[in-house]
Amino acid sequence: MAGNIFGSIFRAVTFGESHGPAVGCVVEGCPAGVPLDAEDIARDLRRRRPGSGAPGTSERNERDVPEILSGVFRGKTLGTPIAVVIRNTNRRSEDYDSLENRYRPGHGDWTWDAKYGFRDHRGGGRGSGRETAGRVAAGAVAKAFLAPLGISVTARVSQAAGIDLPGDSGDSGAAAQVEKRLEELAARGDSAGGLVSCRVSGLPPGLGEPVFGKLPARIGEAVLSIGACKGIEFGAGFAAALLEGSDNNDEPVLDSGADGLPPGVPGLSFRTNRAGGSLGGISTGMDLEFRAAFKPVASIGTPQKTVNRNGETEEIRVSGRHDICILPRAAPVVEAMAALVIADLTLQHRSARGNYETM
Amino acid sequence: MAGNIFGSIFRAVTFGESHGPAVGCVVEGCPAGVPLDAEDIARDLRRRRPGSGAPGTSERNERDVPEILSGVFRGKTLGTPIAVVIRNTNRRSEDYDSLENRYRPGHGDWTWDAKYGFRDHRGGGRGSGRETAGRVAAGAVAKAFLAPLGISVTARVSQAAGIDLPGDSGDSGAAAQVEKRLEELAARGDSAGGLVSCRVSGLPPGLGEPVFGKLPARIGEAVLSIGACKGIEFGAGFAAALLEGSDNNDEPVLDSGADGLPPGVPGLSFRTNRAGGSLGGISTGMDLEFRAAFKPVASIGTPQKTVNRNGETEEIRVSGRHDICILPRAAPVVEAMAALVIADLTLQHRSARGNYETM
Amino acid sequence: MAGNIFGSIFRAVTFGESHGPAVGCVVEGCPAGVPLDAEDIARDLRRRRPGSGAPGTSERNERDVPEILSGVFRGKTLGTPIAVVIRNTNRRSEDYDSLENRYRPGHGDWTWDAKYGFRDHRGGGRGSGRETAGRVAAGAVAKAFLAPLGISVTARVSQAAGIDLPGDSGDSGAAAQVEKRLEELAARGDSAGGLVSCRVSGLPPGLGEPVFGKLPARIGEAVLSIGACKGIEFGAGFAAALLEGSDNNDEPVLDSGADGLPPGVPGLSFRTNRAGGSLGGISTGMDLEFRAAFKPVASIGTPQKTVNRNGETEEIRVSGRHDICILPRAAPVVEAMAALVIADLTLQHRSARGNYETM
Amino acid sequence: MAGNIFGSIFRAVTFGESHGPAVGCVVEGCPAGVPLDAEDIARDLRRRRPGSGAPGTSERNERDVPEILSGVFRGKTLGTPIAVVIRNTNRRSEDYDSLENRYRPGHGDWTWDAKYGFRDHRGGGRGSGRETAGRVAAGAVAKAFLAPLGISVTARVSQAAGIDLPGDSGDSGAAAQVEKRLEELAARGDSAGGLVSCRVSGLPPGLGEPVFGKLPARIGEAVLSIGACKGIEFGAGFAAALLEGSDNNDEPVLDSGADGLPPGVPGLSFRTNRAGGSLGGISTGMDLEFRAAFKPVASIGTPQKTVNRNGETEEIRVSGRHDICILPRAAPVVEAMAALVIADLTLQHRSARGNYETM
Repeated sequence: MAGNIFGSIFRAVTFGESHGPAVGCVVEGCPAGVPLDAEDIARDLRRRRPGSGAPGTSERNERDVPEILSGVFRGKTLGTPIAVVIRNTNRRSEDYDSLENRYRPGHGDWTWDAKYGFRDHRGGGRGSGRETAGRVAAGAVAKAFLAPLGISVTARVSQAAGIDLPGDSGDSGAAAQVEKRLEELAARGDSAGGLVSCRVSGLPPGLGEPVFGKLPARIGEAVLSIGACKGIEFGAGFAAALLEGSDNNDEPVLDSGADGLPPGVPGLSFRTNRAGGSLGGISTGMDLEFRAAFKPVASIGTPQKTVNRNGETEEIRVSGRHDICILPRAAPVVEAMAALVIADLTLQHRSARGNYETM
Repeated sequence: MAGNIFGSIFRAVTFGESHGPAVGCVVEGCPAGVPLDAEDIARDLRRRRPGSGAPGTSERNERDVPEILSGVFRGKTLGTPIAVVIRNTNRRSEDYDSLENRYRPGHGDWTWDAKYGFRDHRGGGRGSGRETAGRVAAGAVAKAFLAPLGISVTARVSQAAGIDLPGDSGDSGAAAQVEKRLEELAARGDSAGGLVSCRVSGLPPGLGEPVFGKLPARIGEAVLSIGACKGIEFGAGFAAALLEGSDNNDEPVLDSGADGLPPGVPGLSFRTNRAGGSLGGISTGMDLEFRAAFKPVASIGTPQKTVNRNGETEEIRVSGRHDICILPRAAPVVEAMAALVIADLTLQHRSARGNYETM
Repeated sequence: MAGNIFGSIFRAVTFGESHGPAVGCVVEGCPAGVPLDAEDIARDLRRRRPGSGAPGTSERNERDVPEILSGVFRGKTLGTPIAVVIRNTNRRSEDYDSLENRYRPGHGDWTWDAKYGFRDHRGGGRGSGRETAGRVAAGAVAKAFLAPLGISVTARVSQAAGIDLPGDSGDSGAAAQVEKRLEELAARGDSAGGLVSCRVSGLPPGLGEPVFGKLPARIGEAVLSIGACKGIEFGAGFAAALLEGSDNNDEPVLDSGADGLPPGVPGLSFRTNRAGGSLGGISTGMDLEFRAAFKPVASIGTPQKTVNRNGETEEIRVSGRHDICILPRAAPVVEAMAALVIADLTLQHRSARGNYETM
Repeated sequence: MAGNIFGSIFRAVTFGESHGPAVGCVVEGCPAGVPLDAEDIARDLRRRRPGSGAPGTSERNERDVPEILSGVFRGKTLGTPIAVVIRNTNRRSEDYDSLENRYRPGHGDWTWDAKYGFRDHRGGGRGSGRETAGRVAAGAVAKAFLAPLGISVTARVSQAAGIDLPGDSGDSGAAAQVEKRLEELAARGDSAGGLVSCRVSGLPPGLGEPVFGKLPARIGEAVLSIGACKGIEFGAGFAAALLEGSDNNDEPVLDSGADGLPPGVPGLSFRTNRAGGSLGGISTGMDLEFRAAFKPVASIGTPQKTVNRNGETEEIRVSGRHDICILPRAAPVVEAMAALVIADLTLQHRSARGNYETM
């Protein structure tokens, strides 16, 4: 299996099956001197954890205590690989015994079998959402690297079960509505999807590479690699396809005090941000803004027709501990993936600098 | 500048500025024995070409004659790198002289300056849409590799200037409507966006890697690396976020004659394809289906406020030969990028095979 | 720090500092279905371990018990990443306190400081030979993958302290001579170097890529990445530079029963093997044979002049537990690195196959 | 075929067969602002060219005129990919017709057939030494990048046909001796090998990565990827294996005026350079020094026994235009490969910088 290593300079490797001994990550390429401790990682893992109490999330209660095995000395990164291990403490494999020979609708059981002819069926194995714990740990390292540079990454649920959730936390009405809707779905043995909105603030202009390595391309790859993600859009997104150029172009404005702008020196922003923070694949200095769509959870209690490994049609009800709506747990994963991309592009940009004028 | 090399095994490198001597590509990793000649490449280049007569496209009339410099012998690929060069024959650089010190709204002029402090301003240089000629040439090689495997990649404009274009070519009414709308926009000095829909048929189950290398992640990166692309969605896409699990899951069905299905052997399909051709990041054997959103062309004749390199606010009208709507020319680029991904995943899958059962 | 990930398809990531909590590796890309257990890894770790009793090796007695955290299920690899952790159990950091501000001659203390301005001085940190435990663990996975294919990798000490050690174990005279010489060196506070010879048997013709990815290039990179290695030569090696073409060329001969050789089908070998197992960068089917030179251990008890971080000249005697001669412990590391390369080239070769004739 | 792309940030792709339309390269990742013109490249190509008049080199008279297709604007690099094409003007393919079905001893004909089952037999195709023209072109770009940083790379023949060639050009006696020996070999239809010595001066301390990406590992891979190279050694090299630690360690000395050395700031050198310019895989600031061994040319006029594709034993005399001794033409290729590595490590080092102390 390829594709467990992400990034080009700031790189993360994740490992682990949902019902094996542990999941985790190794982060390579994080520069030396970044303040980091296990609590930085544990904080984000708690947000991703099942049983965190968020409405609609599963009750599996993993403790998710990260252990840093390398790369940190006296509270700072050494520049060497940072290995983080998170033990799997609550494995009820027997829940999954009945699934060894059945293909759950909406799951990768069948495609995995078609690809490898061999799989760990327990809870999805490597294909399980548990795999994302390693991503969140790696993302926490990326965020620790970005924070002193003034860059923050924040993802939140902006729609769940068809109900919009405004950004300001003042409106608890929508949240209550979502909770009620999810309870109804749980009672019916059904599930919901939604949207995650993400914002990266403090981004300097100049990140991203102009051809294949465009900022939206790199973010798109990262976020679409999260299970259940079915789409992503930047800035005005799909709605931009309906606008005219004169409506869609953002007007450049000089920052105060930037008149007489010396060439090559930022000092410019935009009156609006329909571009969502990048032009020509390169960050503009405005916030990077994108939304990702997640399909409803595939594991549902409602009976569904399916097929098994004996080539028989049968009916299945997926029991076990499942989320009704993955969104609250998906948000920190989106955040982690975006942070990994931004950290990588930051280092990639450094390596490209060095016109003789500036060396 | 990084990010001019795309893929992991079947790889494409593109090069060239819009107003330099040539653009082109080198394809590495294409297996030996694939029938290929220059006309395979020229055919797709004609579809991408400005002045191809499609409504709303620019009049710059590049001949776009590809020359194959290596990798093909007696009409077949050698397995060695395939270099293709396309000369730039119609360079009116003087059109762009007035842009050397001005930042066009909606363009990467400013971000490029902020990143490099040095650029070829003529027609966007490497940041120009002309860069995609190299992608189309590389994609044509990928399609030549895929065709004998029964895999076809087809992209078409499914919405332009706000008007839906149905797939069947019978309805010329919508096309006429689009043409009329684009003429109006041209008259007003404005521009339009739209959607490209792409379908990959003949895909075997098993392509894509389950973690970071998911099929939608790889396609998403590829397509979002095309300039002006603002979003992508797979299968039911953003609409899936509004569905319940029981409505969204596709029902697995046995192919006729596949009862008693031996493990690991395909013989299964799905009654619907809301998943858009992948589950768990791996192809299901159903068609891969996705849509990409393109913003309206940024270069417009209408006066716009902007900023220049002297830190002054000024008004700009972008003259020169520009498309009103990029969509007809974007479709072959989407096709090329998707073909490159599928070719790469095909080889990646081969390298992963080899359970001892099957060796 | 870059360069902790090795390989292109069969890939190993290593992590860990000599005096941190653990060292280890993650192996990505090993196909599913390979029989593997922790004892396969432990066996090679014991050969690499200090205090293994080999003459001239250090007394630090690490237990080196590997724990497999992922990628193995029911005694076989899953195809997913295989994470292996080896705890550091015997850390006497205080031995190294006196070195925090001193640059040991022949060590990377100074270059590390010059590069990062920050280091874990305890026992060399990531720059320590302890880092190779992760390599040996990863190499054991590669050997488990290669064994069922009939490929074996064997490295042995062929020269130590200036004394040649013949391959057949019959001659214990040379070994006794080496032991005596090392005791003399230990008494004088000095150290020795030597040669490791490696042979890969069972290699099919066709591995290696003809341009940058030649078999000797890939092996050379792998082996020269081992600390203290100062040179490598293949087959006749440096002596070939003195031969004439008619003496150096190996004569091709048909294998018995291979007359009427069908094109593309092996059935040929060579009367001699001065090429050392590759021609044009591709394996010939003969044994791959190479030798690597290791410098004498840099840490010696003899007083040496050096410089410290305060910019003062001083005299240093390196105490602590050090090897007199690294060779016995270097051999399994050479073996591991060679195995990783061969596993990678094997998968790379699979991905390249697929001329239409053979698909 | 994989392995036509070299490097991680400063990267070169080469393409072309010896008897196809052209050979060439694309260099990706060279920063913007480097002065470069076609003559910089042509100069090195002339040194590599057959028929350059150096004793023992082939008479094939390629003109080798490089054309820069992209990446240079107004005499400076743009930061974008630099594509260079060198037309093959003197292709006498008919010389090779008799080789279509025969395996030349010491050549990759057989291994290529075993690998691909399909090849361009004319002059070795992609496996020909002509492929190195692309490397030399790419290396010239790397040298142009390094020159303003004060880094120079110089390779020279230090032994040919068994005769040592001292570095100072004063001694023309040895050169005359070599010429005489090669004439004798030519008369007998035989060939010679030799050594290339390379020195990189002006290297700052800190280049190279401490684990797999060690400076000698990266150089070793680069140089061993040149056809006919059978070994490489750094500094004292194989002779170091015979020394004792106290003899081999280089004594660190303070540069004048560097007392009170501030941490992290170079100001140190070594009394000797047996290490050959690196410690712990990282450059020390001393010259990088290595030697590479090349086997005698495999194509000889003397009759040799071999095997053909029909599985028959036969006798072969290799006619055509061949070098007697490849060494004079190998030196600029060694230089190019070393320059590519140093350029890449320079950019890799930049991306790793950024301890918070220094940002």
